[in-house]
Amino acid sequence: MDTERLEKQIDFILELDKMKNLYRQTYVLHEDRKENDAEHSWHLGIMAFLLAEHSDMPVNAEKVTKMVLIHDIVEIDAGDTYCYDQEGYKTKADREEKAAQRIFGLLPDDQKKEFYELWREFEDSLTPEAKFAAALDRLQPLLLNYTKGGISWTEHGVHKEQVLARNSEVKNISHNIAELINSIINDAADKGYLK
Amino acid sequence: MDTERLEKQIDFILELDKMKNLYRQTYVLHEDRKENDAEHSWHLGIMAFLLAEHSDMPVNAEKVTKMVLIHDIVEIDAGDTYCYDQEGYKTKADREEKAAQRIFGLLPDDQKKEFYELWREFEDSLTPEAKFAAALDRLQPLLLNYTKGGISWTEHGVHKEQVLARNSEVKNISHNIAELINSIINDAADKGYLK
Repeated sequence: MDTERLEKQIDFILELDKMKNLYRQTYVLHEDRKENDAEHSWHLGIMAFLLAEHSDMPVNAEKVTKMVLIHDIVEIDAGDTYCYDQEGYKTKADREEKAAQRIFGLLPDDQKKEFYELWREFEDSLTPEAKFAAALDRLQPLLLNYTKGGISWTEHGVHKEQVLARNSEVKNISHNIAELINSIINDAADKGYLK
Repeated sequence: MDTERLEKQIDFILELDKMKNLYRQTYVLHEDRKENDAEHSWHLGIMAFLLAEHSDMPVNAEKVTKMVLIHDIVEIDAGDTYCYDQEGYKTKADREEKAAQRIFGLLPDDQKKEFYELWREFEDSLTPEAKFAAALDRLQPLLLNYTKGGISWTEHGVHKEQVLARNSEVKNISHNIAELINSIINDAADKGYLK
């Protein structure tokens, strides 16, 4: 057995535990607390193969699953940047690149490369898989916020136009999901969840 | 768009949120609280493709990933049965079968069949993928318990022999992971984490 290789893999697995106390702005449905990155990523992982049929371009659903499982790992060092935080977004790319180098750097070289490239592909959002992963990453918090009465939108005073802009790319990969998102946003605005 | 089909998929996705407050006996590393099923399943999902090379039989790593992401969904209705709870294990199979029928039954028929069969394959533990998934399901809580000073073993007064028996199947699918697990158990016993 290549003990050093397995040890590096285990170190990485233990490092991942930090995702369980990285809290996002979205609330879970059945407790009075925010959702963490591990929970969010798991939810997306299942949504990837459940909803892949709604992509307008063929996607490798398994690749989307892997991508969403790892897409937020950089937040272990870089923190969660709330999607309507304009200041935070200015330094986000730089903070996340450094985080990717350190965290994926815990792995054996070949796996560092594999994980880094998968994360980079997600961030660059050019391939069908990356675009579909991004669409799921929009849909999931929207579903939770809407179902929970718009709680995190109200907390942050979010406007309907901001949510529409945030979700505007979804139509380029899935007209079904884009249509669903638009109907949710309209209904949320009608109910007063959005300004 | 087949609205009814997408609505069923969304109902299932919302139902999954209950996994985020189903607490296991294992503690997370960086907070004073137990781990929930969503976090556990996410952790396993990444371990599946990270560690697939350690399987002694060829495995479809993507299939293992999907399997571990959904393997605990039945606990939404059936609850978590602690692995050293002999009474709970008597009714576990029956409770979980009913849960699978209801929860996967929220999905469109073809996806109900797909998810049910993947879960059934995990439970039957006959294929290389199911055996490897089970090995990961043993390794992950062991790593967390050991790293956290054996906290949940101490709470339940668990004996070394119970942990060895619980993990005895791992060697049939991965001698590398079995060797790692045995060395952790021996060290845990030496340190007094196990009776």
